[in-house]
Amino acid sequence: MLFAYALVIGVVSLAMSLIAAAITVRKPEGNKDMKRVAEAIREGSRAYLHRQGKVIAAFAIVLAILFLVLKDGWLIDVAFLTGAFTSYLTAYLGMSVAVRANSRTANIAERGVEKAFYTAIIGGTVTGFAAVGLGLIGLVLLLNYFTLTPHTIPLIIGFGFGASLVSLFARVGGGIYTKSADVGADLVGKTELNLPEDDPRNPATIADNVGDNVGDCAGMSADVYESYVVTLVAALLIAVPFAIKAPNLVEYPILLASMGIIASLLGLAFIKPRSNKVERVLYSGIGSAVLIAAILDFAITYLLRIGMYYFLAVLSGLLLVILLFAITDYYTGRRAKYVIKVASAAQGGGGTDVIMGLAAGLHSTFWPVLAVVVAILVSFESARVYGTVYGVYGIGIAAVSMLSLTATVLTIDSFGPITDNAGGIAEMSHAKEHVRNVTDRLDAMGNTTKATTKGFAIGGAALSATALFVAFAQAASISTIDALNPIVTAGIFIGALLPFIFSSFLMEAVGKGADALVDEVRRQFKTIKGLMQGKAKPDYAKVVDMTTVNALKNLVLPELFAVLTPILVGLLLGKEALAGLLVGMIPASFVLALFMANSGATMDNAKKYVEAGNFGGKGSDTHKAAVVGDTVGDPLKDTAGPALNSMIKVISTISILLAGIFVYALI
Amino acid sequence: MLFAYALVIGVVSLAMSLIAAAITVRKPEGNKDMKRVAEAIREGSRAYLHRQGKVIAAFAIVLAILFLVLKDGWLIDVAFLTGAFTSYLTAYLGMSVAVRANSRTANIAERGVEKAFYTAIIGGTVTGFAAVGLGLIGLVLLLNYFTLTPHTIPLIIGFGFGASLVSLFARVGGGIYTKSADVGADLVGKTELNLPEDDPRNPATIADNVGDNVGDCAGMSADVYESYVVTLVAALLIAVPFAIKAPNLVEYPILLASMGIIASLLGLAFIKPRSNKVERVLYSGIGSAVLIAAILDFAITYLLRIGMYYFLAVLSGLLLVILLFAITDYYTGRRAKYVIKVASAAQGGGGTDVIMGLAAGLHSTFWPVLAVVVAILVSFESARVYGTVYGVYGIGIAAVSMLSLTATVLTIDSFGPITDNAGGIAEMSHAKEHVRNVTDRLDAMGNTTKATTKGFAIGGAALSATALFVAFAQAASISTIDALNPIVTAGIFIGALLPFIFSSFLMEAVGKGADALVDEVRRQFKTIKGLMQGKAKPDYAKVVDMTTVNALKNLVLPELFAVLTPILVGLLLGKEALAGLLVGMIPASFVLALFMANSGATMDNAKKYVEAGNFGGKGSDTHKAAVVGDTVGDPLKDTAGPALNSMIKVISTISILLAGIFVYALI
Repeated sequence: MLFAYALVIGVVSLAMSLIAAAITVRKPEGNKDMKRVAEAIREGSRAYLHRQGKVIAAFAIVLAILFLVLKDGWLIDVAFLTGAFTSYLTAYLGMSVAVRANSRTANIAERGVEKAFYTAIIGGTVTGFAAVGLGLIGLVLLLNYFTLTPHTIPLIIGFGFGASLVSLFARVGGGIYTKSADVGADLVGKTELNLPEDDPRNPATIADNVGDNVGDCAGMSADVYESYVVTLVAALLIAVPFAIKAPNLVEYPILLASMGIIASLLGLAFIKPRSNKVERVLYSGIGSAVLIAAILDFAITYLLRIGMYYFLAVLSGLLLVILLFAITDYYTGRRAKYVIKVASAAQGGGGTDVIMGLAAGLHSTFWPVLAVVVAILVSFESARVYGTVYGVYGIGIAAVSMLSLTATVLTIDSFGPITDNAGGIAEMSHAKEHVRNVTDRLDAMGNTTKATTKGFAIGGAALSATALFVAFAQAASISTIDALNPIVTAGIFIGALLPFIFSSFLMEAVGKGADALVDEVRRQFKTIKGLMQGKAKPDYAKVVDMTTVNALKNLVLPELFAVLTPILVGLLLGKEALAGLLVGMIPASFVLALFMANSGATMDNAKKYVEAGNFGGKGSDTHKAAVVGDTVGDPLKDTAGPALNSMIKVISTISILLAGIFVYALI
Repeated sequence: MLFAYALVIGVVSLAMSLIAAAITVRKPEGNKDMKRVAEAIREGSRAYLHRQGKVIAAFAIVLAILFLVLKDGWLIDVAFLTGAFTSYLTAYLGMSVAVRANSRTANIAERGVEKAFYTAIIGGTVTGFAAVGLGLIGLVLLLNYFTLTPHTIPLIIGFGFGASLVSLFARVGGGIYTKSADVGADLVGKTELNLPEDDPRNPATIADNVGDNVGDCAGMSADVYESYVVTLVAALLIAVPFAIKAPNLVEYPILLASMGIIASLLGLAFIKPRSNKVERVLYSGIGSAVLIAAILDFAITYLLRIGMYYFLAVLSGLLLVILLFAITDYYTGRRAKYVIKVASAAQGGGGTDVIMGLAAGLHSTFWPVLAVVVAILVSFESARVYGTVYGVYGIGIAAVSMLSLTATVLTIDSFGPITDNAGGIAEMSHAKEHVRNVTDRLDAMGNTTKATTKGFAIGGAALSATALFVAFAQAASISTIDALNPIVTAGIFIGALLPFIFSSFLMEAVGKGADALVDEVRRQFKTIKGLMQGKAKPDYAKVVDMTTVNALKNLVLPELFAVLTPILVGLLLGKEALAGLLVGMIPASFVLALFMANSGATMDNAKKYVEAGNFGGKGSDTHKAAVVGDTVGDPLKDTAGPALNSMIKVISTISILLAGIFVYALI
């Protein structure tokens, strides 16, 4: 019965997303120039997602065939493919609207910042509410058709794994794409030829704008969708042993997720372009959603009569949302102490800029990790009041409450690529200055929101992986993971190694992709006559195609690495080593991802700080140095760092899958 | 009785070191110009080490007073202060000879590369054999005066902690010093003014050369001395529970250490400047020492009649020495695939150079970690043949055999700063071209040896920390460390965080130090008339002093952080959390240190590859980009990376100290 309510809320969320999509599409698309540019971006994005989809489909079909050997294999396949499909659908839907909202935002910017702001935000809600709607509907249907017994477990795991797999592809492929294009475009365009950002003469601009959509939009939404789904999966798995004695514990996470959707919906009312301070807009949106969720969750906890101490676990998850936003903003915000330090260091050259940027990123890991540690301890201890065995359930609940606000976070996040694109379209379509002023302002806002939501994505991934880890131990019937056992130690070392190797693939892919792109752009400027004078058009499509091929080519190795490592470790060294691998991997990846994302964001904002006229301003040597830092930071913050989120979740779900197969499905 | 032999070998080693020192000092010091430059470097180095010594002394005295509250506190103090003093003595002695061997190497370079090579190597042996001699003598005396009973344990721990504490200071202080000076000197000298390396007109050259001594020489030797001592301490602590039933197990590590000294002595005969291929020289020296050690260790294992399976543990430790050298060389060597990749990426600018350099460093962590994991598993499994409890002893034995070749490694390593200085002195004293050709060749050799020995230092630190971790669990009477226990999980997250925060302090210190130095150098070129024309002398002393003050000022925070964190975690969250902290810290620090050291080395050699005439050669845009990469790599490879070695050991010994105090000394 309670599940029926959840289903209704899921459907409402999906409907809300579709309505927002309809509203967006109906808005005027802009003048001929804007349409032309937007069309090129849309075409490139769609082409990329289609080709990426084929690679994923091939991968998924192979896996689905393998699953058929399992008992009830076809049922697992249904769940797995549904999980994969809904994840892809979220990414696709969100992106399809984003590539339409961009020109509409640019067009309406003529009529002031407020209207443009709302156009972009409404575009963002499509992704946000589609993600939570699809996730919740999928899981509730699975739970409803099959009552939660050990037999349902492989299905839930399959669903989570499907979401995980697609997320890894979207994050890795999108990440490589977006930064190859961005770095390549900047290197020749800004550094060699002194062209401004998004100058239509630069053959790489369209690819750069496509990158925003396939990376920041599709990649990010698949990532957070995955966190959302696998967190619920983890909580449900943890709840299974209590299902008979206390069925409410199974319903609780689903209800918390539902309340999160309602809170996100109501919280939308508080996202307003009130002042120039973008941070305010952000905080009021997030803050009010958190507050509403807290009230609703309190009520639910009370009504379910499962014990009010669980509410402390809920609170620790909700507070984490605010804390991670605030901390990320403190370290990487537009006028943050560290940003100014890095900008100041740029006066010594690119080398010192990067040294200080890396130092800032290293330092920025402190509070987020501490916050997550405290949340883990508080949620565990408060649930333990009801008995030692319930402690881990508390961790799952904290993770669910945190991720329950996914819709709000994704909305705010998608605002980033939309406004970024709107700026690009305004620039490329030679829009009037007052229009560009508006899109520039929104773009700056979007940059901040994009950076700060990363803190949520990374922290959410870490907490959800921790919950998955606990669920794994349960699924594998492991009651202690003894770090003094050398086989566990071996697993821990290998686990700590994984994020480093995984990111090396991504960093190298971006380096190579950007390199190839630089050559191509230089070639176009050499061979296409009149390009520099704006008399001839560059061959955008060629660059888009190159970038696509590079991203897809470099997608396979990290993907196989992430999927095969846990399988190999599990089969060769056993489940204890696999447990060790998770123990080593989760914290190391968490800290490394924070370091990478925040280093990049700090160096990015340091560059913008210089561009705002400090330490010499645009065109000065300091600016050139800051651009070097920004270039280094690009793949750190938008490729390697975020992809680690997907990596830890996919490895955790595969581990559960392995454990689950051995324990439930094969017997 | 067996200990007496060990004592004799320790004394022989120390004597060998002193003889080498005497031989070095008696060689002619060179012409007036060389003397003058060498004197300035010597003065700067001595001044720095004295001032650093005072800071350490203050710190050590406070700790010694605190220890007095313990039972037998004054005895612990004796051990602690001896450990600290011998560590400092090693660093001091090695450095004192290095700052004399440098000008003598430059002077004798007139007479060919062979004589110069031997002068530098003999200088290097002073550090190598002093370290192992002092370490062995100290420990044997402790063991001899007090038979190994639970009561001796706090003494052994105290000795190890003394060595650890000084190492941390030497690594951190020396690391900040050397790279502030190096980066600062390069930024203005090479980049702004186009001066060659070590140009006497650059006010920062003397500081740069001082840095080689206090960082690469004193810092490195204190670090490896520490690894040597604490590894023996760990093995002895692990052996204690078996001491009554099998006293041989206590003697075994001491004897292995002794055999290592003999092997290192004999192995010296194989270090010859046979060909241009510096790698050959290196491998033949290391390879023969490993081979001799293997034979001797086999004999000892047989004669002690403790079981031949232990020899497998020994072998895994010895092979690790070769493997870590080979792997580091594979990734970072002068013509390594990754080096060429990074150099090629420099064609796209400083940004892509650093992106590829970081990618290379990330990637380079794979084999070293795997090698250590295999060594841990093999040594554990082979010792377990004699019963499950002996497994961990095997890990201790592997670590001891690896570190038993410390003398050889330190000799080869110290060759680096000596030849680096010799090159600097030749340049600054305007030596003839053929002399500079010889010193340049040696300098290039030294750069490679310095880089490859880092693999040993990092791997050795990781393995010795693992042994310490096992010893800690024993000392704290912990039989399982359950990663599923959230308090342990909390410890693991905090542990994984530590190396990131710790390195952030160091990176920032270098950034700030270099910044200040750049300002000062610019000031001198502005205010001292005729400096650029070589008619006036720069104020070297001012720069040396500034760098000293910066290093000492920035030493305190990371030091306190490393010392206080385990204490706080242990007191506030308990010993289980402290155990978790070690579990999270050791692998994360190991991988991070490898990443940092190898990224830096790769970018350094990529720059040299470009300077050798590739991709445009010296002065080209590609070269400028490669210099940016080298600048970023400098603090990664010579400050933050190596300091992590000391950090993990000091935190491990403090943890043992805490556990030891609670279990043995207070009761």
